[in-house]
Amino acid sequence: MSFLHRHLLGIEQLGPQDITTILDLAEDYVTLNRQSAKHSDVLAGLTQINMFFENSTRTQASFEIAGKRLGADVMNMAMQASSIKKGETLIDTALTLNAMHPDLLVVRHPQSGAVDLLAQKVNCAVLNAGDGRHEHPTQALLDALTIRRAKGRLHRLTVAICGDIAHSRVARSNILLLGKMENRIRLIGPPTLMPSQIEQFGVEVFDDMHAGLADADVVMMLRLQRERMDGGFIPSEREYYHRFGLDLEKLALAKPDAIVMHPGPMNRGVEIDGTLADDINRSVIQDQVEMGVAVRMAAMELLARNLLSSRPDAA
Amino acid sequence: MSFLHRHLLGIEQLGPQDITTILDLAEDYVTLNRQSAKHSDVLAGLTQINMFFENSTRTQASFEIAGKRLGADVMNMAMQASSIKKGETLIDTALTLNAMHPDLLVVRHPQSGAVDLLAQKVNCAVLNAGDGRHEHPTQALLDALTIRRAKGRLHRLTVAICGDIAHSRVARSNILLLGKMENRIRLIGPPTLMPSQIEQFGVEVFDDMHAGLADADVVMMLRLQRERMDGGFIPSEREYYHRFGLDLEKLALAKPDAIVMHPGPMNRGVEIDGTLADDINRSVIQDQVEMGVAVRMAAMELLARNLLSSRPDAA
Amino acid sequence: MSFLHRHLLGIEQLGPQDITTILDLAEDYVTLNRQSAKHSDVLAGLTQINMFFENSTRTQASFEIAGKRLGADVMNMAMQASSIKKGETLIDTALTLNAMHPDLLVVRHPQSGAVDLLAQKVNCAVLNAGDGRHEHPTQALLDALTIRRAKGRLHRLTVAICGDIAHSRVARSNILLLGKMENRIRLIGPPTLMPSQIEQFGVEVFDDMHAGLADADVVMMLRLQRERMDGGFIPSEREYYHRFGLDLEKLALAKPDAIVMHPGPMNRGVEIDGTLADDINRSVIQDQVEMGVAVRMAAMELLARNLLSSRPDAA
Repeated sequence: MSFLHRHLLGIEQLGPQDITTILDLAEDYVTLNRQSAKHSDVLAGLTQINMFFENSTRTQASFEIAGKRLGADVMNMAMQASSIKKGETLIDTALTLNAMHPDLLVVRHPQSGAVDLLAQKVNCAVLNAGDGRHEHPTQALLDALTIRRAKGRLHRLTVAICGDIAHSRVARSNILLLGKMENRIRLIGPPTLMPSQIEQFGVEVFDDMHAGLADADVVMMLRLQRERMDGGFIPSEREYYHRFGLDLEKLALAKPDAIVMHPGPMNRGVEIDGTLADDINRSVIQDQVEMGVAVRMAAMELLARNLLSSRPDAA
Repeated sequence: MSFLHRHLLGIEQLGPQDITTILDLAEDYVTLNRQSAKHSDVLAGLTQINMFFENSTRTQASFEIAGKRLGADVMNMAMQASSIKKGETLIDTALTLNAMHPDLLVVRHPQSGAVDLLAQKVNCAVLNAGDGRHEHPTQALLDALTIRRAKGRLHRLTVAICGDIAHSRVARSNILLLGKMENRIRLIGPPTLMPSQIEQFGVEVFDDMHAGLADADVVMMLRLQRERMDGGFIPSEREYYHRFGLDLEKLALAKPDAIVMHPGPMNRGVEIDGTLADDINRSVIQDQVEMGVAVRMAAMELLARNLLSSRPDAA
Repeated sequence: MSFLHRHLLGIEQLGPQDITTILDLAEDYVTLNRQSAKHSDVLAGLTQINMFFENSTRTQASFEIAGKRLGADVMNMAMQASSIKKGETLIDTALTLNAMHPDLLVVRHPQSGAVDLLAQKVNCAVLNAGDGRHEHPTQALLDALTIRRAKGRLHRLTVAICGDIAHSRVARSNILLLGKMENRIRLIGPPTLMPSQIEQFGVEVFDDMHAGLADADVVMMLRLQRERMDGGFIPSEREYYHRFGLDLEKLALAKPDAIVMHPGPMNRGVEIDGTLADDINRSVIQDQVEMGVAVRMAAMELLARNLLSSRPDAA
């Protein structure tokens, strides 16, 4: 396999072959996770530390399950309740953990770029589990695996990403990944929630669902990130749902077999109609969660292999 | 063994043979837990998730130890600090976790019926670790094992359950279990803390310890659940202890070899005299905790067996 | 090996041979932890519970990693968020956990003496992970291992311990250990942060860095424990740094090859200059963290051996 990276910091650093390598290996883990005995020893003897500077039940659980199923010694560190409060810096915390010889460090941080900075200071492999508005690479990879399985391919698809693009690292990583795999990307949302100069990424921008959804193969809804909106325009939920919330009527504008995605957690009745979200003929939202565990197992296996092959005691 | 249930949601669904099956298997785990090497591989390769929507150090620790000793990959999710706050519904959270393919889901929730509802939505086995005022089945089972070991039998005993019956799922599950095993049940407490129409469960009701404790084989004290009393009558601790707190003088009204129980955590000097609680000639309170781990190991083993035998990849 | 203690409550109870036994075994774990596969089965089948009544990311992580690498079933209990709030006493909590048959109980508590008290009530081995202003034995042991590796010996060294001695269990355990190993100890700090009658421990006391640091082989800085100062003198950070903060200029007063230590987390620019803290030619602060995991693995192995040999089912 050709995956040669030391860290998984963003989609930006990956080539199409890297992406395919991760997704192909993840397919094996989809199969394993559906077995009764869903445990391997690929990471046996290795130490994985989850450092979450932002709460995230689902992402942390996904990484924790992934590591435990691979046989790693897994630790969660809730960093809010920790020495950060005692005035310790991010880098001090990273150096401290690094001195305990972890092999894999899974990091979520509210500031864009914090995970890249941290990766420069440590000897182990670092996985970005979301940093500010920057990247969330395993989310884009799990979305890619979900799309590939539902559509049979991951290229030449029309993917509409809808909602609060400006505050979304999910959108950013997806735009990068889907672009690298040669898909047509449409961004739909109110101009106030659209990043400036986003067209340079080769995307089409719409402020109207009717125009934007036409002929889409994939409709990816985003969470309205109220917690990240500091001042500025905050839409009312009702108005937002009317204009940008996905319901059956708006979905009818996309292709008849278009799939519906959402990274969760959902605001039902704000970004998406609850009944549509639960309709397993259209919605692949639960599949995304399932693919998340498999993609993280694959990414951690590939990083661990590179780490081990670089060490003096490697066989 | 005859235990055929898919979930353990309450004592209500269990027959006497089910109860005996769990307790008999738990005896093996009492033995194992007293060994130095207290680990088995009964749940190896399986994933157990503890979802506690209410804090509970002792119950969560008991389930976590039980799962780890059985070799499961165990995860704790502190649900208060989680996406529940972001507006995600209980069902969305359950569906999300379900998509990660857990095998056992241990759930505590402040609302009666929430765990039953959740069990209808998932593919794995669900254990109710306490839901509102409804049921707490493993507590009743550990109490039953404690009684059976202390008294040599689990039928034709007179069991006095004393205190805040109205707010207690512990009382409710115990009334159901002790009734199914053909014991005589006496409920003692102030009328304001007694559920209406409770006599229909075949129990005797007393508002006086002296009358209620006469000839009891077992005296089960309950925790005063101030945190669940919304408005209504809240007794002063001093007055409550005087009338309903257990001390040596009141215990003298029961049989000479009557045992004293409490589900913990205790309010010493409110429900029970501290010296009496620590007297290992009368109090089996520490035994209850020990039996808790064993009963949970047994229940999880039985549910896992049923789960595995229902799966396509079963041997 | 001669280590015969049932608990590790403090340095006070250890003899020089005990200390050497722990450090020698820890050397093996330093080697193991630098391997790729850093996992053993020394504690397989045993249950370790970390009970932290005070938050401490780094110490809890160190004990958790140590136990997991030794193959124990490890549980963390965040005691603040727990039944302590429901009015349960420390001893009730200890007895409850004890009834679940843990083998190793790692305890941190804000009150001096609380861990000793708890150890009297339980059947398992207890490790003090810091109690009030009393002791923090594994910190002193990891400091000793760090010094021994850097200096080639652990006796006849001049060690300057600088800063907030009065509030520091780290200082107290280090004074005991370094004294038992026949080193010369100098305490430097403002008189208001110096315990009364400390000279009886055979130390020299200074209120001036220039006099105190002369000829030191080891300069051990302490954290300014503002959170433990209830009333009394609280120095301004700027004034404190000017008089007692370590920088290159003050360090020049010590021996040319003097090493710099800090137990972390650091207040950079308060106790120590940040650049000096990061200078791996002088600072062994990251080594201290690394030695922490190894020392805890060694201490837990030795306690577990004693525990197992005392049990009826011992081979």
